[in-house]
Amino acid sequence: MKCGPGRPCTGGRGRAEEGAPKSYRRCKPCGGKAVIHMPQHRLALCRACYPPWFEKQTQRTIERFHMFGKTDRILVAVSGGKDSLGLWHALLQLGYVADGLYIHLRIQGSDGLAYSQRSLEFARAYADRSGRELIVVDLQETMGFGIPEIQRAVHRPACSPCGTTKRHYMNKVAVERGYDGLATGHNLDDEAATLFSNTLRWDMDYLARQTPVLPAAEGFARKVKPFCFFSEKETALYAVLEGVPYIREECPFALGATSLEHKDVINRLEHESPGTKRAFLANFLSAKDRLPAPAPPAMKPCRECGSPSPVEVCAFCRLRAATLARGSGLALTQVGARSVEGQGAVVCQVKT
Amino acid sequence: MKCGPGRPCTGGRGRAEEGAPKSYRRCKPCGGKAVIHMPQHRLALCRACYPPWFEKQTQRTIERFHMFGKTDRILVAVSGGKDSLGLWHALLQLGYVADGLYIHLRIQGSDGLAYSQRSLEFARAYADRSGRELIVVDLQETMGFGIPEIQRAVHRPACSPCGTTKRHYMNKVAVERGYDGLATGHNLDDEAATLFSNTLRWDMDYLARQTPVLPAAEGFARKVKPFCFFSEKETALYAVLEGVPYIREECPFALGATSLEHKDVINRLEHESPGTKRAFLANFLSAKDRLPAPAPPAMKPCRECGSPSPVEVCAFCRLRAATLARGSGLALTQVGARSVEGQGAVVCQVKT
Repeated sequence: MKCGPGRPCTGGRGRAEEGAPKSYRRCKPCGGKAVIHMPQHRLALCRACYPPWFEKQTQRTIERFHMFGKTDRILVAVSGGKDSLGLWHALLQLGYVADGLYIHLRIQGSDGLAYSQRSLEFARAYADRSGRELIVVDLQETMGFGIPEIQRAVHRPACSPCGTTKRHYMNKVAVERGYDGLATGHNLDDEAATLFSNTLRWDMDYLARQTPVLPAAEGFARKVKPFCFFSEKETALYAVLEGVPYIREECPFALGATSLEHKDVINRLEHESPGTKRAFLANFLSAKDRLPAPAPPAMKPCRECGSPSPVEVCAFCRLRAATLARGSGLALTQVGARSVEGQGAVVCQVKT
Repeated sequence: MKCGPGRPCTGGRGRAEEGAPKSYRRCKPCGGKAVIHMPQHRLALCRACYPPWFEKQTQRTIERFHMFGKTDRILVAVSGGKDSLGLWHALLQLGYVADGLYIHLRIQGSDGLAYSQRSLEFARAYADRSGRELIVVDLQETMGFGIPEIQRAVHRPACSPCGTTKRHYMNKVAVERGYDGLATGHNLDDEAATLFSNTLRWDMDYLARQTPVLPAAEGFARKVKPFCFFSEKETALYAVLEGVPYIREECPFALGATSLEHKDVINRLEHESPGTKRAFLANFLSAKDRLPAPAPPAMKPCRECGSPSPVEVCAFCRLRAATLARGSGLALTQVGARSVEGQGAVVCQVKT
């Protein structure tokens, strides 16, 4: 039992401990030993008071951006990491109706073992614990190959084609299964790094589209980011304190990614001036209303998969075709033929 | 005699040296030993080819932004540093009519000696060499005190009040003496750091006003920054190669300034990805046309000094009044009375 709204403080581990060094920060609500200090909020909290505060903040973000309501069915894209599993957990704690979607990317870890497989097990463990449905899309079964084969075929860092692939399936499953919203675990570090990258290039179209809530449109699910104002440290602590196990290993393809470098720069600024990271995103979101809105591109169904696309063949299908064309010793020709004929059929392995 | 347009290569120190290690970069135009490599331009240049290239780039920036023409009278704000003295020199080399303005801030160096006095000597030396006029505004004579007294009175970092003071006098002298433009030596590092700072706060009004050329308006001189695309390293090399001595000591008040921290961050990104810094500014200037233009505030003459101000008493006069009000043992009352009565009169010590 945790203290907080509706959960009165029990005086357990969160209470001030006698004899504790005075240099320990004290929890603002109950005076217990703080486990986190958030200078940008001028707030320190103990292990008991932190999760309720975190959930209240999540609820505030959901309401502020009118993300979804208690009767909506939400699909949470889970990777097995702290952010997405923490998000699924927080939404269920707050009383929302939320299922999970895991896209099995078939990535090997740096130790040669199956990174994606291990990640899936964390997602499955949480689905079992919560009793909610976990939808699994296995790229190997669906396309005949995973991210490593795509990365080898396109000869560029994996993050961009991996993002294209995940966005394609996340949207497809959410639309086909009639979910009211697709929630992702993007945190403040992710959002600030993306904003930083778009700002360094002053890409006005990307800037105008960066938002915590992207409304539904023809063929597109509503997309929301309820954790966009929490730092990585904050989401990790929430998962730990709530006993939600998650994969701690970073994706091996992410090593050296520009986004990590940008996160590092922003964290350095945050260290010098606490609150910089949050203000950077929050002020941008306020200023964004004054940015010229980009004209939405005219969409039509992709000739290959039927998903909405501004061009005849969508980015995902071009990626798939490039991988198929280059082959990778996986007897892909037949799979490719089926994919093209499939006109958008998605094979999903469903687990409850 | 330097090589370059109108200055053919003489085969001097700029030529390839026999026996030089192959690892030396070669000057692109003449094959000589390069003294600078600019990966963002994919260009290496020798000590002979660099100054003409630098001046040509300066001319391109002046023309691109329609800064001024050969018949205009330009006032260059000089601090004694590499950027401003380099700018004065480049403008004269390019055939422009340019005088100098030095604002004597009365700052002491970290060694207790007169930092501003030493800076003035570099400015005077260049004025003597070029035979152009140097206008000197001495804060001690004009106001009765310098930046250190202002800084002590306002209890905040000196950069902001120093900037207010300098902008006030730079504009006043340029307007009163009828110059067609006021040129400052802001370089790419300065501009990128300012842009970075404004972007971190998403200050749309400041962003919309950041430009290499600010047109003249009632009571305001035209302000231009012809060096805005050169890095500090590039302006320093130009001054060195052109034999323009400058003060190498940093302003003691600048130590620990946020702008230096931001410069450091941007240089780190530049190191990882050459061209980032220039693209950041250049793309912003292209995107800026799509930012909403701020409504220009209604201006009226400042009640104290007569300079245009959006409020009754301008920022400079409020700063001066605050310093006078707090006193500093300098018998300022009389000076203050004269200043208030002066209604905008500027006492200038003029040196040719």
